[in-house]
Amino acid sequence: MSEGLPQFADVVAAAARLGPHIVRTPVMRSSAFDARAGREVFFKCENLQTGGAFKYRGAMNVLLQLDPAKTPVVVTHSSGNHGNALALAARARGMRAIVVVPRDAAKSKMAAIQSSGARIELCEPGLRAREQRLKEILAAEPGEVVHPFDDARIIAGQGTAVLELLAEFPGLEVISTPVGGGGLITGSALAAKAMVPGIRVIGAEPEQADDAYQSLRAGERREVRQPDTIADGLRGFIGVRNFALLQSHVDDVVTVSEAEIVAAMKIVLCDLKLLIEPSSGVAVAAALKGALGEPGQRVGIVLSGGNVDLDLCPFLRGAVRP
Amino acid sequence: MSEGLPQFADVVAAAARLGPHIVRTPVMRSSAFDARAGREVFFKCENLQTGGAFKYRGAMNVLLQLDPAKTPVVVTHSSGNHGNALALAARARGMRAIVVVPRDAAKSKMAAIQSSGARIELCEPGLRAREQRLKEILAAEPGEVVHPFDDARIIAGQGTAVLELLAEFPGLEVISTPVGGGGLITGSALAAKAMVPGIRVIGAEPEQADDAYQSLRAGERREVRQPDTIADGLRGFIGVRNFALLQSHVDDVVTVSEAEIVAAMKIVLCDLKLLIEPSSGVAVAAALKGALGEPGQRVGIVLSGGNVDLDLCPFLRGAVRP
Repeated sequence: MSEGLPQFADVVAAAARLGPHIVRTPVMRSSAFDARAGREVFFKCENLQTGGAFKYRGAMNVLLQLDPAKTPVVVTHSSGNHGNALALAARARGMRAIVVVPRDAAKSKMAAIQSSGARIELCEPGLRAREQRLKEILAAEPGEVVHPFDDARIIAGQGTAVLELLAEFPGLEVISTPVGGGGLITGSALAAKAMVPGIRVIGAEPEQADDAYQSLRAGERREVRQPDTIADGLRGFIGVRNFALLQSHVDDVVTVSEAEIVAAMKIVLCDLKLLIEPSSGVAVAAALKGALGEPGQRVGIVLSGGNVDLDLCPFLRGAVRP
Repeated sequence: MSEGLPQFADVVAAAARLGPHIVRTPVMRSSAFDARAGREVFFKCENLQTGGAFKYRGAMNVLLQLDPAKTPVVVTHSSGNHGNALALAARARGMRAIVVVPRDAAKSKMAAIQSSGARIELCEPGLRAREQRLKEILAAEPGEVVHPFDDARIIAGQGTAVLELLAEFPGLEVISTPVGGGGLITGSALAAKAMVPGIRVIGAEPEQADDAYQSLRAGERREVRQPDTIADGLRGFIGVRNFALLQSHVDDVVTVSEAEIVAAMKIVLCDLKLLIEPSSGVAVAAALKGALGEPGQRVGIVLSGGNVDLDLCPFLRGAVRP
C-alpha cells in the first residue's frame, strides 16, 4: 500500500478524507515580519494542529484507510512528532500504536508519545537499530508499518496543509517548508504545482543537515555524516519516494545557519506571538535572509510544528517550571 | 464626551463602528490546558490584535467618532499598550498623536510608540507628573484627551472582544479578564451580562497590585502603595467609571501570585503555542488555580496582549538577539 509515487489527486482525496478529523489551521500574518523579510508572508500554522505538528495529517490519512477490526495495531519508529501523531491518530481510531524510540530521545517527547496512549519500545540509537527492533516487534505482533515520510499516503496527507493554504490564498507566488525526510515538502509541491501554475516551491534545510540540498545537486540521494542541528525534526535523510518527487516537483533547496534558525524562532515569537519549533524556524530563516523568491512577492510558509523543549531552547531556558 | 457610564448598546454600536478597522481575533483552545484547568477554556486572542493588545479596540472606537479635520490631534499618557494603540489608530485615521511617557518606561515600549508615528513627551514618573505634563501640552496645542480606561467610549470599545467571543460561543458560563484600570473587565461585563443571563464575570489581579480586589470589598476606590508586579499593564488603579461598573456588573475579583503569573505564561506557550504578556497570564493563572467557576464549566478568557520584553521575562531571557 505504501508503494509508488502519490499524485495531486491523492492529496485532494486525503483532504476530503481528513475533513473533520484534523484542525483546519489558521493562516497568520504580521506587518512587522513582512517589513523584515521584504515580502508578504502567509504563515500556515501547523504548530496549532492536533499534536502540535503537521504530522497528524499524514498519520490520520493512513489510519482512515485502515479498518481497525482488520488492522488493530500500527507500528512506527520515531523519536518525535510522527510517533506522537500516530499515537493520537490510533487512539482516535480505536487502534493500538507501538512506537520504536531510540534510548537517547528527549524525555519530553517520550512522555508525550506515552501520554497519547502508545506503547513505547526502546532501541539503541541509529536507523539500523530502529529497523531491527521494528522487525522483531512485527514478528511477535503483526501490524501495519506507518513510515514517517517514505510512504505515498503520508506524503499525500502532508500535502493537505498547502492545499488549504492555496485554497484560501491562491495568489501566493512561492511556497516553502522545511525538509527532513521530505514528506512535507513533496506533498506541498504536489499541491502547489497543480493548483498554481508557475508557483515556486523551495525547501529549507539546516546547513548542518543539508542532505536534500546535497542530493538535489548530486542527482542522487546523499546522506550527511552526523547531522548536528538544533532542528531535531530535520536530522533524518530524505526518503526514496521523497527524493524522486523532490527532483520532479521542487524548484530548489536552500540552507540556513544554526544562529539564523534561533533568531527566526525569536522573531516569530515577537512578531506573530507564536511558538514554533526549531525545524519550523528553518523556512522562516530562509525568508528573512531573502532566499525565498524576489522582494515584494507573496510567500507561503508552513510553520510545521510548535513542540519545543523549553529547557533546550537558548532563549526559553529558565528557572520557572509549570 | 467621555462622561457618564456606557451601556450594552454602546458596546454594540462600537462593534458596528469598528467593523473592518480591527482584527476579529481567533478563539483558541487546548485539550492539554483544559485537562490542567479542569474546565473547558476558550481563549480570545487579543494578543493577535493590531498593536498586540485589546487596547486598539478602545482607541479606535474613540477616533472613529472624531472628525480628523476638526480634531487633528489626540493626546494621552501611557507607558504601554494604550499609547501604542492610540498612535496606530491616529495614523490610520490621518490624525497626530502625542503620548506623555514617564522617563522610566521600558525603552522597547517607547520605541514601539515612536515607530507607530506618535510624538513622545517625557515626564517624571508618577500620575501627578503625567497629568501636569498633559495639561502643559494641551495649553500649547489643543487636542482631544483619550484616557486609557476611565472613558465611556474606551470601555465600550474594549467590550467588543467579549461580544465577539460570546457571539461565537454563547454557551460560556464564566468570563474572565485581567483588571488594571478596569476598561477591559467592565466593557466585557457590559457585553456578557446582557448577552448571557446568569453568566459570571470575574476579574483577575496580581496579589501585589490588588487595588480592584480591595476596592470591591471596601465598597470604595482604594489605591495600593507601590504596586510591584511583573504584570506591567496592571500597575495602575481602577478608574471612577470603571469602579462604578465593577460594583454593578462584575461578580468578583480574584488574585494570583507572581510565580503563578509566570507559570501561566509558560503553560500557554507550551499548550497553545502563544506568547502572552504577564498581564494576560493573570487571568490564565486564576483558571489554573481553580478560581474561575466550577470544575467542568465553560470559561472564556481574554488574552489581553502579547507584548513581552523578552529580556525581562524569566524564561525568555537569553543571548540570542534577532
